[in-house]
Amino acid sequence: MAGNILDVLTAAWINVVTSIVLLLAFAVLKNQPMNARVYFPKWFLKGQKQRAGPVGGFGTRDSSTNRIGRFLNLNVKSYAHVMDWIWTTLRMPEAELIEHAGLDSAVLLRVFLLGLKIFTPMLAWGCLVLIPINKTDNELISYQAANPNFAYSAVDTISIANVHDKSKRLWAHLLGAYMYTAWTCLMLFNEYEEVESLRFNFLAAQKRRPDQFTILVRQVPKDRQIKVSQQIENFFKENHSEHYCTHQVVYNANHLSKIVEKKEKCLNKIEYLQKQQATRQSSKRSTTRKGFLRLFGEKVDALDFYTIKCNRLSEEIKKERCHILSTEKCVMKAGFVSFNSRWGAAVCAQTQQSKDSTCWLTDWAPEARDVCWDNLSIPYMELNSRRLLIGFIIFFIASFFMIPITFVQSLANLDALDKNFHFLKPLLDQRFIRSVLQGFLPGLSLKLSLTFLPQLMMFLSKFEGRVSLSKIERNAATKYFVVMVVNVFFGNVIVGSVFEQLKQYIDSPIRVPKAFGSSIPMKSTFFITYIMVDGWSTVAAEALRLWAFLWYHLQNMVIVKTEKDRNKAMAFTTPQYNALLPKLGLYFLLGLVYAVISPLILPFIIVFFAFGYIIYRNQVINVYEPKYESSAAFWPLIHRHIVVALLITHITLIGLFSIKRSAASTPLLLPLPILTSFFHWYCAERFGPAFNQYPLQEARAKDNLERTLEPNLDVRSFLETAYLHPAITSALAEDTLTLDKGGIHNLLERRNSDSPSTVRSTPRSNPDRQLEQSCNISIDSHSASRTNSNH
Amino acid sequence: MAGNILDVLTAAWINVVTSIVLLLAFAVLKNQPMNARVYFPKWFLKGQKQRAGPVGGFGTRDSSTNRIGRFLNLNVKSYAHVMDWIWTTLRMPEAELIEHAGLDSAVLLRVFLLGLKIFTPMLAWGCLVLIPINKTDNELISYQAANPNFAYSAVDTISIANVHDKSKRLWAHLLGAYMYTAWTCLMLFNEYEEVESLRFNFLAAQKRRPDQFTILVRQVPKDRQIKVSQQIENFFKENHSEHYCTHQVVYNANHLSKIVEKKEKCLNKIEYLQKQQATRQSSKRSTTRKGFLRLFGEKVDALDFYTIKCNRLSEEIKKERCHILSTEKCVMKAGFVSFNSRWGAAVCAQTQQSKDSTCWLTDWAPEARDVCWDNLSIPYMELNSRRLLIGFIIFFIASFFMIPITFVQSLANLDALDKNFHFLKPLLDQRFIRSVLQGFLPGLSLKLSLTFLPQLMMFLSKFEGRVSLSKIERNAATKYFVVMVVNVFFGNVIVGSVFEQLKQYIDSPIRVPKAFGSSIPMKSTFFITYIMVDGWSTVAAEALRLWAFLWYHLQNMVIVKTEKDRNKAMAFTTPQYNALLPKLGLYFLLGLVYAVISPLILPFIIVFFAFGYIIYRNQVINVYEPKYESSAAFWPLIHRHIVVALLITHITLIGLFSIKRSAASTPLLLPLPILTSFFHWYCAERFGPAFNQYPLQEARAKDNLERTLEPNLDVRSFLETAYLHPAITSALAEDTLTLDKGGIHNLLERRNSDSPSTVRSTPRSNPDRQLEQSCNISIDSHSASRTNSNH
Repeated sequence: MAGNILDVLTAAWINVVTSIVLLLAFAVLKNQPMNARVYFPKWFLKGQKQRAGPVGGFGTRDSSTNRIGRFLNLNVKSYAHVMDWIWTTLRMPEAELIEHAGLDSAVLLRVFLLGLKIFTPMLAWGCLVLIPINKTDNELISYQAANPNFAYSAVDTISIANVHDKSKRLWAHLLGAYMYTAWTCLMLFNEYEEVESLRFNFLAAQKRRPDQFTILVRQVPKDRQIKVSQQIENFFKENHSEHYCTHQVVYNANHLSKIVEKKEKCLNKIEYLQKQQATRQSSKRSTTRKGFLRLFGEKVDALDFYTIKCNRLSEEIKKERCHILSTEKCVMKAGFVSFNSRWGAAVCAQTQQSKDSTCWLTDWAPEARDVCWDNLSIPYMELNSRRLLIGFIIFFIASFFMIPITFVQSLANLDALDKNFHFLKPLLDQRFIRSVLQGFLPGLSLKLSLTFLPQLMMFLSKFEGRVSLSKIERNAATKYFVVMVVNVFFGNVIVGSVFEQLKQYIDSPIRVPKAFGSSIPMKSTFFITYIMVDGWSTVAAEALRLWAFLWYHLQNMVIVKTEKDRNKAMAFTTPQYNALLPKLGLYFLLGLVYAVISPLILPFIIVFFAFGYIIYRNQVINVYEPKYESSAAFWPLIHRHIVVALLITHITLIGLFSIKRSAASTPLLLPLPILTSFFHWYCAERFGPAFNQYPLQEARAKDNLERTLEPNLDVRSFLETAYLHPAITSALAEDTLTLDKGGIHNLLERRNSDSPSTVRSTPRSNPDRQLEQSCNISIDSHSASRTNSNH
Repeated sequence: MAGNILDVLTAAWINVVTSIVLLLAFAVLKNQPMNARVYFPKWFLKGQKQRAGPVGGFGTRDSSTNRIGRFLNLNVKSYAHVMDWIWTTLRMPEAELIEHAGLDSAVLLRVFLLGLKIFTPMLAWGCLVLIPINKTDNELISYQAANPNFAYSAVDTISIANVHDKSKRLWAHLLGAYMYTAWTCLMLFNEYEEVESLRFNFLAAQKRRPDQFTILVRQVPKDRQIKVSQQIENFFKENHSEHYCTHQVVYNANHLSKIVEKKEKCLNKIEYLQKQQATRQSSKRSTTRKGFLRLFGEKVDALDFYTIKCNRLSEEIKKERCHILSTEKCVMKAGFVSFNSRWGAAVCAQTQQSKDSTCWLTDWAPEARDVCWDNLSIPYMELNSRRLLIGFIIFFIASFFMIPITFVQSLANLDALDKNFHFLKPLLDQRFIRSVLQGFLPGLSLKLSLTFLPQLMMFLSKFEGRVSLSKIERNAATKYFVVMVVNVFFGNVIVGSVFEQLKQYIDSPIRVPKAFGSSIPMKSTFFITYIMVDGWSTVAAEALRLWAFLWYHLQNMVIVKTEKDRNKAMAFTTPQYNALLPKLGLYFLLGLVYAVISPLILPFIIVFFAFGYIIYRNQVINVYEPKYESSAAFWPLIHRHIVVALLITHITLIGLFSIKRSAASTPLLLPLPILTSFFHWYCAERFGPAFNQYPLQEARAKDNLERTLEPNLDVRSFLETAYLHPAITSALAEDTLTLDKGGIHNLLERRNSDSPSTVRSTPRSNPDRQLEQSCNISIDSHSASRTNSNH
């Protein structure tokens, strides 16, 4: 059996060293004030600079008279405490963490803890029972006696491979399988229950937010007689008369958002030029060129040029906005309908509105920043066709992605390297380097082949027409998990043989578990190196944020001109759930499968979860700025992934036991997958609704509380413009700087005269009111445009 | 290949004769006035006697002075028109049919029509293209030339078995498969759409009914502090304050309903005795005995005895009812909550009420007569465990029911008969009798082995805890369909070989389609005889209602003493959806599978659907009295069964084509099952909600209409006692005959002093009001007690 113990040790040694080096670099770098915006961006965003930064905090450093001290930490003593951030990080209680970073982040950390909770007791049973039982048998020695060519390593002697066929020792493994499954289910159940209660508490404690009162309605039926806005109003006024408050139609404002972006850049430039002028204190003014890339063409005064350009863009924005607001074609067949109580919104989101279940589809509105505006108006049939298409694509990716992986791995094979690159041969013949490469290469090449998949999955999920970023991420996570399980797990276990044997497997699927059972113990060393490369080192690199670090300082040197720019260059980032969650799922899978087969893998996984917990806790507290808050809506997904991992474990064990010809015990394993499926079904029914729906009891309680505390609350004005397209909002906000109120009124009148409205008889149609009111808004415009530019 | 054309023709001949004889008997018998209650019970129930009965109607016959004329139809001329009922039956338009018999019955007939619509064009393509193509090939002749022992029949020469391997003729079959699938899907879609619109129209046209305003809440959480009734009231008053109207708790009144039944029998006896007394006109009075079965013990005056007994039972009823109403233990953890508008009920039925999704589960209330009272209070965990258990049981029945079937069939085998019953040998050696038995026996024995299954499935579904009879029937139908498909279809196709080959199939499931493909054309003659026995003859027997006929006249002779008894003995019956729907599903399966393989089966199926349509139309109009009205809620089930049939067809064809080594065309079949699954998924999303939920738009429209027409409507009084347990309702109704109102008040007072109520402070708890009000009710009591006795 393949896999030398030396290779594993070398790989472990390299990875430990790498991780420690990365961590130390991280600890030192984050100690430097000049890196505060790289390692503590979250606090900057929150406006709490003093809590960011090294040791005493960034704020206190301001008092330092030393100019260098503002960039480098010269306090030598503080380096003695470089690793203190770990305790600082761990000290923050969960409640504060939820308050600080949101529930999504807090629950993400719980996944790591769940890993620790599940695998630590398994390790105990593995060390105390399974490893001694495996070690004291002698299957491998006797097999080697019969087949002198056969080689095995110390890793194999402590795995189930060392147990004789039909041995009574297998009962220990069977018992282990039951105990592990029961334990995992228990942990899963408890965790689901806790996360559910966290979610409810979080939702109950949330401040008033527009999305609590708002639903998204899609597939508004076609009607040429009447405008979409009026149609929505009529429908909901009729069918939710007691609760309907207001609504906002969705505009197709992609072009507008491009112009707004341009103008923002332009304004930024002006600000920079003005600052420059002020510091120079001379009459000499900067010039620029009019032509291509500002490198060719006539020389002009830069400030004048940009001011004129900015004004022209403002005009364009006005026109485009007018066009959007007045052209019925720019209105999508969807809208955000707001209610005057959470109860009303909860009712509307959960019920069927119309006889025809393909139109007037209602669902909770995502947060405004979470909305994927482009997807809101895909017609029903197209949506279904897209899903069908994507289904086929995922099937093909999952099935055939193994081909490039196998190819890359065969290249990375040492023997192949020997053959293809002769000049490397003397180097490769050295024992140590061989070990290094043997330990590193397979895992690394696999990891590299997977890097671009999460982005591809995001693209596919977006194409599928999900209406919010959070849903797109969750959906992409599921897709990625499927592809990973098929390719990383199944692909590696039967790699190489897979293509020759494919026909045979299709012919006789029952042999698949058997093939698994026989090849799975051999693969434990490979997965150990994979965990170290993909788990340990990557997590340490995540903390160091090398790219963000370099990018920030590069920008600082080259582009950054104003404080605003510096904030913009600030290296905050968002947690990548679409890549992270499936990865965690894969570790659960590896842990569960190998817990019985080869318990040696468990310590590596436990180290990963512990280490990951610390690092991600730091990132969540100091770095990540979530793009949205889904209130732990991804938990059911995690749960599902772990249950799938359990089922795969059971099938693998059944295969393994039937190979070991343990006829008495194999049928005893059959209830495991059935009971696990039932457990999953029960959990889905018990907890599932809590993650999709908002119970009326909760909604009513919150409504009542609010009504008692703020009896005179005007919900309407609070909701009126919450779901305007960010480009329009920011365009309007810009206007308040440049236009007087008369201008807006002119705009409105022009609009009314432009559109051949059938609604004229009603006092005033909704968007008008929105427009008028939104003239008074200048809050939110920045964050809204930022969200937009993130898209 | 087995199956002689002579056997088929003999079987056909026998079945045609049987069916015609049964039909003629039916036509003659229904022409007799004395049988009116057997063949026209529906009109009696509706109180329209004059529309029931032979030719001129039962009512007109009353004027006949001839005494015999009241029993026998002596009008010889009318016998010339004995088959006129067919036209009478077919003439009733669908709208009137829905009005007369309900939507369920009308939609049941549509299933037969759907069969005709699907299979008639298929028959055309089969006759014009497939049969000539099959017939003109010569695979069987050449095979026989190679294997002289091989025998085949004329039936086989027109099936796909006669086409050469790799023949280009197979393209016609491939094209046929695509056309058939497309046509079936088109018909399914149209039908779903029409049934959906029928359902909505039916619901919209319905009169005001309590179940439109009422939801069923189950899993009321345990609370020792407070009574269930108060708990429900508090919860819904809080969370549906604007819409909550009233509620009724569910009592465990099984014991009470037994006593009520006894009393009714007793009253019936008294009525009979009084009539007897009156007709005798003598002072001699009937006597009875006190002891066992009224055959032993002291002789007493019968009328006195029963009057005393009746009074004793009345006392008992009073006590028991008091006990039920005052004991909190008799209150189940469930209730019927009524709202003051359909909108409010629709909202409550479709939404999640509480954080904990295992309690306060709401759903539409079934009709009061449809409620399965015993199942209302099964705790959540027990419900789940029961479903798990039943799942296992169904799996085992489906898997192992083949064993008794095979055993019965092997007994029914002619050779086995020869062996086991020597004295039959000379008889069996006659060609004709052999053909009769060959044609009849296999189908008959299969049919007999299946007879008790529907009842078993009903029992299992009830045990699973479904809350209404309609749901139990639908669920049982699905179970029965699964068992039938596995046993009748799969079982027969691979019968005999199945047990030897089982291991091989489990080992290599991919071979199953191949095994199918090879044995399926051979089985067409068997299925033709099955269709004739189970389809034609059974349907004709359904019309004749021999058991109902005999049972009615037996009762008439022996038991019937009063007019009430006669009405009771009246042989009305309910449509058995749980047995009928899966049977229809099986015919769709057979038709679809054989449409390509052996089109000869199609005419037999078409005759079945046409014949069934006429007979069931007659039954629906004249005989069936539905136990409930589900407004075509079973349509999704029919749709699902037909889609499953399509999928099985595709898999079978793939197997068959791969045997015919038509490598070019086999992969072309693969998209069929995928596209069909997508079609099903689309239909489920498009139409499914219409059959589960009540759209708010509809609810609101109906509410508004009602409010306009009846502005002063008191919904509360209409709803107050609609969902009282039927035994309590009828007990109360009885009381109005025997007790004065003061008695009831005493009862109420006693109840109030009995119960250690925590609710005393509230003005008056709900059941009190119910009780008081229900004292004024004497309508419904009979029908309620009938419903009860049906349970």
